[in-house]
Amino acid sequence: MNGGDGPNSYAKNSTLQRGVVDATKELLSKAIAENLDIETLLSSKTFHIADLGCSVGPNTFFSVENILEAVEFKYQSQGLNSQILEFQVFFNDHTPNDFNMLFKSLPQNRRYYAAGVPGSFYGRLFPNASIQMVHSSYATHWLSRVPKEVADRNTPAWNKGRIYYSNSTDEVVRAYEAQYAEDMEYFLHVRAQEIVHGGLMLLIIIGRPSGTPHSEYFNNITFQILGSCLMGLARKGIVSEEKVDSFNVPMYCMSPQEVEAAVERNGCFSIESIENIPAVKPPDNVSKTQLFASHMRAAGEGLVKHHFGEEILDELFDLYQKKLEEQPSAVESGKSISFLVVLKRKA
Amino acid sequence: MNGGDGPNSYAKNSTLQRGVVDATKELLSKAIAENLDIETLLSSKTFHIADLGCSVGPNTFFSVENILEAVEFKYQSQGLNSQILEFQVFFNDHTPNDFNMLFKSLPQNRRYYAAGVPGSFYGRLFPNASIQMVHSSYATHWLSRVPKEVADRNTPAWNKGRIYYSNSTDEVVRAYEAQYAEDMEYFLHVRAQEIVHGGLMLLIIIGRPSGTPHSEYFNNITFQILGSCLMGLARKGIVSEEKVDSFNVPMYCMSPQEVEAAVERNGCFSIESIENIPAVKPPDNVSKTQLFASHMRAAGEGLVKHHFGEEILDELFDLYQKKLEEQPSAVESGKSISFLVVLKRKA
Repeated sequence: MNGGDGPNSYAKNSTLQRGVVDATKELLSKAIAENLDIETLLSSKTFHIADLGCSVGPNTFFSVENILEAVEFKYQSQGLNSQILEFQVFFNDHTPNDFNMLFKSLPQNRRYYAAGVPGSFYGRLFPNASIQMVHSSYATHWLSRVPKEVADRNTPAWNKGRIYYSNSTDEVVRAYEAQYAEDMEYFLHVRAQEIVHGGLMLLIIIGRPSGTPHSEYFNNITFQILGSCLMGLARKGIVSEEKVDSFNVPMYCMSPQEVEAAVERNGCFSIESIENIPAVKPPDNVSKTQLFASHMRAAGEGLVKHHFGEEILDELFDLYQKKLEEQPSAVESGKSISFLVVLKRKA
Repeated sequence: MNGGDGPNSYAKNSTLQRGVVDATKELLSKAIAENLDIETLLSSKTFHIADLGCSVGPNTFFSVENILEAVEFKYQSQGLNSQILEFQVFFNDHTPNDFNMLFKSLPQNRRYYAAGVPGSFYGRLFPNASIQMVHSSYATHWLSRVPKEVADRNTPAWNKGRIYYSNSTDEVVRAYEAQYAEDMEYFLHVRAQEIVHGGLMLLIIIGRPSGTPHSEYFNNITFQILGSCLMGLARKGIVSEEKVDSFNVPMYCMSPQEVEAAVERNGCFSIESIENIPAVKPPDNVSKTQLFASHMRAAGEGLVKHHFGEEILDELFDLYQKKLEEQPSAVESGKSISFLVVLKRKA
């Protein structure tokens, strides 16, 4: 994760997410084989890869290894000697990310020079035209911040009694949509400066199918349920209602259509493909409810702790799991829609 | 610090070391103004600087700022527009270095892209010909490891009853000299691959004047005193004598002459200058004894703790300060010889 005030990103390193890395390997290889220009390969002696929102590993290392293999394969398929190719990989995440842990777990036998780059990806991270390939997996759904209005009781977009936008008033939804549009515009603007002409950007995004209302999308429903649990704690007097009113999750579930529109507005990238990623089957020995509960805890714990303190964590997430179990239909029908966007920097 | 099993490098961020940064500013500026070729400036749109053995800051940030200023000045003095110049700075230290702390304290208003690079500088850190300037301050005196023989009771170089080489047998001194020669050879070999033709390497080295025996040099005497304190603790039964026998400090005080010889053997760099750095006056309100005692604790605590455990630290360093006070002549005559080596990568 890498948004402005988002949670930590340990959820990125769950078993489920490892499954996503494996499931996307083939898609990534195909995207690289079909879209990486030989001119881009030859523009620098070193091939620079950036993983944005890398978290602490190990999933980022698996993704990087998959990308390296695909680039080398493309190189060889063009009759070039991939032996002389050198890779430098920039692992990026927010400054509070645990880079010490990341560095300690770097693969010993890696075939690339590694560097850590701290800072939000909603800002410049690299020199002009210095990156051949950007990869980002399950990170861009974090906004750079909570839209200001939704925490302000003096605006019509005040999100009273809720922690997320998907079942809120139109004003709240519009505030989130505007924040997403601003963030994505800036994200594309800065990446266009950093990526060489012909360079690729591979974005793996958790989002919602185009045309689906926010309120009907499962990943959003889970945050609605967490919100109702927090209101439950407020009614019991364990947290204040005001505290819940001022808490909002800086996340946005975008659709492929919305990404397309943002890329077209930016104008610096061509859309090579947008493809759905096959759903990952959860491990057999874990119930879906347990899985979603532990996933939500991993993803949301940091945010909740920061706002409400550590004391409420166990009670909140126990309540959350209970609520999930009471709504098996929500869990069973729950789909996790993810898609891969392949963009190429125009010349 | 960056040697194989050396201590942490907090000593690098003491007030005294801040004084060294200030004292070397002028020398660095002069070295850059006189030796940085305009061709090197123009070989890449980005000017890449590496600080090897950077520790956690803030001294590395001051050094980098000084270098940036000097490079921009050189750029402007050649009639070039330094506005379009971009800097990328690689902060390198051992993987156990606290990069989280380093990243958190990066200057907000920095004019460069920052990256952290974990790993020993006695190995490759960067792609071929990707660095325009290497800077390393008070780091290369750490060896990559303790020479194997000195901790092996079955060799004539076994360093019984001592923790350092400077007052030991010829065999021990030769083992340290051989380790230094091997390390410096490899250090120059890998840097020659990483630095562009015409690129500069600025090394600030704590060492001993050419021709001075190891045993007479003050920085070495301080380690001899620490060794005698440890033997004192062994006699009291607080640590075992065996434990002292197997403890050795992986540090070597090189002379300008030795550096020159190593650079000539390597053959890839020209020596542009070797200059002594003016001694830094300690702060008025601190006695020299206190200063050296706190400095030794900062530099040696990590090593001692790792080998002997935390329990003995207070007693050991109290004893050390007492011993220093008993030998005012050693402290008063103590000179801290440092020198700046300016190397240019040959075409």
